[in-house]
Amino acid sequence: MLQNIRVVLVGTTHPGNIGGAARAMKNMGLSRLVLVDPRIFPSPDADARASGATDILESAKVVATLEDALVGCRLVLGTSARDRSLPWPLLDPRASGEKVIEQAGEGAEVALVFGREHAGLTNEELQRCHFHVHIPSDPGFSSLNLAAAVQVLSYEVRMAWLAALAHSEQGETPKAVSAHNAELATMDEMEGFYTHLEATLVAIGFLDPEKPRHLMARLRRLYGRSEVERSELSILRGVLTETQKAARGEPYKRKDQ
Amino acid sequence: MLQNIRVVLVGTTHPGNIGGAARAMKNMGLSRLVLVDPRIFPSPDADARASGATDILESAKVVATLEDALVGCRLVLGTSARDRSLPWPLLDPRASGEKVIEQAGEGAEVALVFGREHAGLTNEELQRCHFHVHIPSDPGFSSLNLAAAVQVLSYEVRMAWLAALAHSEQGETPKAVSAHNAELATMDEMEGFYTHLEATLVAIGFLDPEKPRHLMARLRRLYGRSEVERSELSILRGVLTETQKAARGEPYKRKDQ
Repeated sequence: MLQNIRVVLVGTTHPGNIGGAARAMKNMGLSRLVLVDPRIFPSPDADARASGATDILESAKVVATLEDALVGCRLVLGTSARDRSLPWPLLDPRASGEKVIEQAGEGAEVALVFGREHAGLTNEELQRCHFHVHIPSDPGFSSLNLAAAVQVLSYEVRMAWLAALAHSEQGETPKAVSAHNAELATMDEMEGFYTHLEATLVAIGFLDPEKPRHLMARLRRLYGRSEVERSELSILRGVLTETQKAARGEPYKRKDQ
Repeated sequence: MLQNIRVVLVGTTHPGNIGGAARAMKNMGLSRLVLVDPRIFPSPDADARASGATDILESAKVVATLEDALVGCRLVLGTSARDRSLPWPLLDPRASGEKVIEQAGEGAEVALVFGREHAGLTNEELQRCHFHVHIPSDPGFSSLNLAAAVQVLSYEVRMAWLAALAHSEQGETPKAVSAHNAELATMDEMEGFYTHLEATLVAIGFLDPEKPRHLMARLRRLYGRSEVERSELSILRGVLTETQKAARGEPYKRKDQ
């Protein structure tokens, strides 16, 4: 459905920004670029900043007006930095990504429109958009670089697309995947470890069985928090075994000796 | 709380990217930039791309190593484009923004670390990070421009910050409070621990300096995940000290003897 989405750059002054926008699009899986009346294009600066996304520059359509760029579109979102006298339905980038994917997923043609580096989109151009998108920026320094704005919107489109994919594959709400996929130690393996740890701490004289204070409880809390993997546990057990040998005064042998 | 967040760029080759990163940061309300061994800095290219964010460039700290850049940090997130042989706790940019704001909101120092334009972060550098961040990109064209990557992460930090502000203004319970309120060990304290741990593992013959395999990396990953408290760290250091004594064949004395 990403192929239903076009990125439209209006009146771009610096060709480097066109290249940067192409790279950002391609990173996020978007491919259709439309340029409305660019000042300089094609350009070596655009190619340089595209850094491998030159296929997007080569297939870019150059048109004269925003109207030409929007032919066939069912949904048009326009980026707007400024508060306007004319109130308009406003989305943040996240809601924009979701709306874009919702519509593109139904087969609709969708456009994301970005204005000139300094002047943005004109009021007339903004009125051709169904929604305005505002990237929440610091009010004291609010104007994003054009390629950076394309990056943020394209990123949110991709996040929404990935969420939609996960939905359709699982047939349910996507859940947070655990940070590591490895097999975790079981509760009884952890108990075996704690017993071994306690014996070792006694052997090296760190834990006084007469005055254990809360030492084992604190160590249980530390390791319990980490969701120790089975393979990590075997490292820790190995360390304890070698420590016990050292405490008995046994010289150590490396396995390869 | 945004002032607790530093952006760390490691080994940046193109000064234009430093400027672009500074602009992206300032747009999103971040201000603290640390440069680890930049190839060229300061530079007119950086100033040009910063486009008004020159205050961030002027106050940027230049340091020699990543370790210097992370002094005092409690949470370190490193961007990683590649699948690694060593799996590591991985976050997407959205979860990263939430985690950063959760910790910065508690007064902790937090670092977002970005690698070199072509080579990214080394494995050793990545092992200094508590979490790896992967920006979900098209597998066929996955490498984002450095300033674009800074833009995406800074944007997600701002989104999480705005959500936290809205929460606190509404008097709602802030979500995702950290599980423990105690003071966490800083990065440099953790480094001291890892050095001590490695020396101890060599002393008991568990770690062969000639064939270290991934042992220290795996232990860094385990302890890095647990957000070790300062008081817990002093227990672990105590265990190491006693283990070293045992390895030297010293008899132990209980403190009360």
